[in-house]
Amino acid sequence: MTQFINKKEDIVTDAIDGIVAASGGKLARLDGYPHIRVVVRNDWDKSKVALVSGGGSGHEPAHAGFVGEGMLTAAVCGDVFASPSVDAVLAGILAVTGPAGCLLIVKNYTGDRLNFGLAAERARAFGLNVRMVVVDDDIALPELPQARGVAGTLFVHKVAGALAQNGADLDTVAAAAKKVIGSVQSIGMSLDTCTVPGSPKEDRIPDGMAELGLGIHGEAGFEQIAFSSAKDGFAAMSAKLEAAMKDGPHVALLNNLGGASVLEMSIVLKELVNSSLGKNITHVVGPASMMTSLDMRGFSVSIFPASSEELELLKVATPLAAWPGVSKIDPIEIKPLNDGLTAIKPIPSAHKQTEEFLRNCCEVLIAAEDDLNALDAKSGDGDTGSTLAGASRALIDAMDRLPLADHTQLYRAIGLELSQTMGGSSGVLLAIFFAATGDGASSGLPMRDAFKAGLARMQEIGGAQIGDRTMVDALAPALDALEQGIAQAADAARAGADHTASILQAKAGRAAYINAQQLEGHVDPGAEAVARLFEHLNS
Amino acid sequence: MTQFINKKEDIVTDAIDGIVAASGGKLARLDGYPHIRVVVRNDWDKSKVALVSGGGSGHEPAHAGFVGEGMLTAAVCGDVFASPSVDAVLAGILAVTGPAGCLLIVKNYTGDRLNFGLAAERARAFGLNVRMVVVDDDIALPELPQARGVAGTLFVHKVAGALAQNGADLDTVAAAAKKVIGSVQSIGMSLDTCTVPGSPKEDRIPDGMAELGLGIHGEAGFEQIAFSSAKDGFAAMSAKLEAAMKDGPHVALLNNLGGASVLEMSIVLKELVNSSLGKNITHVVGPASMMTSLDMRGFSVSIFPASSEELELLKVATPLAAWPGVSKIDPIEIKPLNDGLTAIKPIPSAHKQTEEFLRNCCEVLIAAEDDLNALDAKSGDGDTGSTLAGASRALIDAMDRLPLADHTQLYRAIGLELSQTMGGSSGVLLAIFFAATGDGASSGLPMRDAFKAGLARMQEIGGAQIGDRTMVDALAPALDALEQGIAQAADAARAGADHTASILQAKAGRAAYINAQQLEGHVDPGAEAVARLFEHLNS
Repeated sequence: MTQFINKKEDIVTDAIDGIVAASGGKLARLDGYPHIRVVVRNDWDKSKVALVSGGGSGHEPAHAGFVGEGMLTAAVCGDVFASPSVDAVLAGILAVTGPAGCLLIVKNYTGDRLNFGLAAERARAFGLNVRMVVVDDDIALPELPQARGVAGTLFVHKVAGALAQNGADLDTVAAAAKKVIGSVQSIGMSLDTCTVPGSPKEDRIPDGMAELGLGIHGEAGFEQIAFSSAKDGFAAMSAKLEAAMKDGPHVALLNNLGGASVLEMSIVLKELVNSSLGKNITHVVGPASMMTSLDMRGFSVSIFPASSEELELLKVATPLAAWPGVSKIDPIEIKPLNDGLTAIKPIPSAHKQTEEFLRNCCEVLIAAEDDLNALDAKSGDGDTGSTLAGASRALIDAMDRLPLADHTQLYRAIGLELSQTMGGSSGVLLAIFFAATGDGASSGLPMRDAFKAGLARMQEIGGAQIGDRTMVDALAPALDALEQGIAQAADAARAGADHTASILQAKAGRAAYINAQQLEGHVDPGAEAVARLFEHLNS
Repeated sequence: MTQFINKKEDIVTDAIDGIVAASGGKLARLDGYPHIRVVVRNDWDKSKVALVSGGGSGHEPAHAGFVGEGMLTAAVCGDVFASPSVDAVLAGILAVTGPAGCLLIVKNYTGDRLNFGLAAERARAFGLNVRMVVVDDDIALPELPQARGVAGTLFVHKVAGALAQNGADLDTVAAAAKKVIGSVQSIGMSLDTCTVPGSPKEDRIPDGMAELGLGIHGEAGFEQIAFSSAKDGFAAMSAKLEAAMKDGPHVALLNNLGGASVLEMSIVLKELVNSSLGKNITHVVGPASMMTSLDMRGFSVSIFPASSEELELLKVATPLAAWPGVSKIDPIEIKPLNDGLTAIKPIPSAHKQTEEFLRNCCEVLIAAEDDLNALDAKSGDGDTGSTLAGASRALIDAMDRLPLADHTQLYRAIGLELSQTMGGSSGVLLAIFFAATGDGASSGLPMRDAFKAGLARMQEIGGAQIGDRTMVDALAPALDALEQGIAQAADAARAGADHTASILQAKAGRAAYINAQQLEGHVDPGAEAVARLFEHLNS
C-alpha cells in the first residue's frame, strides 16, 4: 500500500516538523533529532504543573496534537508503535518541569511504563517532583493481567490538563488523573487492519467480518464476528461495555481509529445514541480521530462516568483543533416544513390573444420535433426535439390553469409548469428562464428587459456564454435586436443559430464532451429551436 | 469492502440523526425524511443573512458539519454524490431566510447549480431575497469549461459566514463570497479510489502510483504519476498550483479526502510548508477532513490570497469542531536540550566494607548464572542468569566510579550503572528499584524503609503484585521480615521463592504468556536470585 511518507525512518520527524511549523508559534520541538523527538509548548513558563505524555507514534493526533493550553505540556514521540527511549522522556520532563512538578500520563504498555518510569527516577535525582499515572482503560481482554491503555487516555489528558491550567497542585492533578483512570472503560471494533509503514498489509479480517476488542497497534482483536450493519455491529460491541457500565450519566468518547470515513462515523454516532448504552450517555466527545491506529478502518468507544466537576473540566475550552469538545446528547428536534413548499398556484384567467400566441409557439416546437432530434443526435443523445415537444404539449394541456390575463404572473406560472413536466437540465434551465422573466416583469421591467433578465439568470445558473454552442447563441442576439423590431430579432436568431455550426469546441452542456469533428457543420438544436420560434413570430 | 453503514438508502438520514443528536441542541433537522434532508441551526432567529449550502453527500463534514454560528445556517443533503432535489433546497431556504435574505453557496456541478438555481427562483416568488454563488476552485482540468467546486468552498463558507454573523447585508456577503471564489484555487491527489456504498470498489490506481487532479466523487484524476515519496508527490501537485499562484501571502487549506491517516497528513503538511508554494503560504487551515470523498486516501490543497480583512474573517472563532481554525506558519523553533540529560556523575569515594559487601553480592549472582538460566528456560527465554551475572560483572568493573562512602548517593549510582549496562525490562526495573531506594535514603528513610520504597516504585512501574510469580514474591516478604533480623529475612525470601513453584498462573513478566503445566514445580528465577542473595547475607 502506497502511503504519503518519505523515508520510513523519517516518518516521525517529518510529522513533527509539520505540526510545529503550523502551530502558529505555539509549539516548539527539542533539539536532538532523531533520538529525541519531543514536542513542547512554546508558551510555557513552568509556573504550573506540567503534563507529559507520549509513547509510540502511529496514534496521531495523540499525543503531539494535544500539546497546548489546557491539555499537555509535552509529548514524547517514539517510532511507529515503539516506546520512546528513557533519554527522550527525560529530555521532555527536564524541558517543561518547574517547581510545581510534572505528571507523566502513560498508556499501559510494558515499554512505555518502564521507559517513562526510569526517566521519572532520573528526573527525581535532579530534585524534580515527578508523578506518573498509567492508563489501562481497555476492557477487551479481561484475562489479560495488564489492561492496555487506549483512547480513554484522552479523558485523562483533558481533566488533568484543565486542572493544571487552573493552577491545581501536583497531588490534586495526579489524584484526579487516577480517579479518571479508575473509571474509564474502552473497547474498539474494526473492519480492516492498519497499514504499518514498511510492512506488507496483513489481510486478517475477511470481507463481511469485523474484529472486536482490538488494540491500537494492529494486534488482533479478541474475536471476529459477522458484520451485517453498523447497528448490529455496534450492539455486539456495546454489550461488552454495558456489562461493565454502572448506571448513571456517562460521557462517551467516539474515536475514529484512522480510516473510517466521516460519514460512517456519523452513522456510528447515531448507533451509539440509540444503543443500549445510550440511556446512560449524556454527553459525547467526537466523533473524531483522537487515538488512531494509523489508517485502521475502525473506531473505539470510551465511557466515563464523569462527576459534575469532571464534566466541567472536560468542557473547559482549549484552542486545540484535535480536541473536538464535549456535546450534550439531546432528543432530535424536527422542524415542520414551511407551507410554502406547496408551490403557489396562480389564479387561472382567460386571454384569447395570449392563449393563441402561446399555442402557436408550442406548435412550432412540436412541428420541429424530428428535425431537432436529428440535430441533437450529432452532439448529444438525440432527444432535444422530443423534450421540447413534450413540454409544449404539456403546456397546451395546462392552458386552462394558466393566468393568461395576468402577464406578470404568467411567466412564473410557465416556469412552474416546465419545472414539473420537463426532465433533464434543459427543463430546469427553461423553468429558471421563465421564472426570472416573470420576476423581471412583476418588478416592472418592460417585457424585453424582463426576458433579458431571464436570460441572464439562466446563463448564471447554467454557465453558458455566447459562443458556447447552446441556445444562448440564438437567444441573446435575438433579444438584443428586439429593440429594432421582430424582423431584426428573427434575423439575429437565425444568424446566431447558423453560427453554432462552426463552433467546434462546445463549452457547456452535453456537447462539451463531444470532439470537434463530430460537431462541424451541425447547428446546435437549442439554438435552432430559438431561431424557428423567432422566425415564426416574424411570419 | 465492509463499511459502517446500515441500509444504503438510510446512509444520509442515519448520519444526520447522529450529527443532530450530538449537537448539544444547536442543530435541528427539517421534517420530510427521506425526501427532505436539511440540517438547520436551532438557534437561528432570521435576523441576519442566512447561508445555505449543500449538495451530494459523501463529503462530510461538508456541509452539515459546518452549520453553526459563524458559518452556515442550513445544509441541504443529497444522496451520496447526488444533488438534492429542488424541493429540498427550497425547504432549506424557506426554513432559514428572513428579511435579511439568503446566500446559496453551491459547488459547480450541473445538478447542484440547476436544483439550487430553480429553488432560488421559487423562493423569490415568495418575495425572499435570495442570491446564489457558484464555487469553481478546481484547477485540475484547465480544458474543462466549467471548473468543479471542491474544498476551496470552505473559504467561502468561512468568510461569508463570519461577515453574515457580523451583520453584513446580503449584497456585502454575496460580493465577499464572489471575491473569494474568484481567487481560490485547488487541486487534489490520491493513492487509492474511494468506496462508494453499494458499489464494488474500483481498482484504478496501481500500487506505487498516485492520481493527480481528481474530483471529489471518485471520478478519475487528470493523470496518474509514479509516486515515490510524499515530497516528490507533493512537488508534482504543487507545480500545478504554483503556475496559477500570484506572488504574495496566501492561506492554504490542507484537506484530507477521507482515508489518509493523521500521521500522513502531518507529513504532507511539512511538504506543503517546505514546497515551492511554501514561500507564499503564511497561514494554513488544517490538515483536517473538511471536504472528503468518502474514504479516499488522498488530500487536496486550496490556496487563497486572502486580504488582511479576509484573513481576519477566517480567524473569527467558531464553535464548530469541523473547522480546524487558521494557524500561522512560522519557522520551527528548536529548544536546546537540558544539560541534565548528561546523567549526574556521582563523585567516586572509597569504602572498603561497602565495596566488599557489594562485591560479595555480585559474586553470588555470578555463581548462580547457570542455575538461574536453567530455571528461566522453564518459563522464559533462559537468560535471567546471564543478565544478572552480566550486570554483576559490570558493577564490579564500575566499583572505582561509585560513591562507596556516601550511602545516600550509592544506590542512585548503582541504578544509573544498571540502566546503562543491563538490557531488557529486568534491567530497567532493577535500575528503578535502586534509584527509588536511593531517593528514599537521601530523604532520610532508614535503609530498610528505603528498600521498601524502592520495591513499591518498582511494583508501581512494573505492575507485579505478590503472587504474580516474580522476584517480588521473595523480595517483599524478605524486606518485611528484615525488622526481625537478617536470618528471618533470609528464611522469608527462601519461603517466598519456593512458593513460586506452585504459582501456576503468572500475571506479570514473560511467564504470563506460558501455560500452567510448564510452570509447575519450577521456582521463578528472579525470586530464586533474591533468596540466594539473602541466604548469602545470612551465611
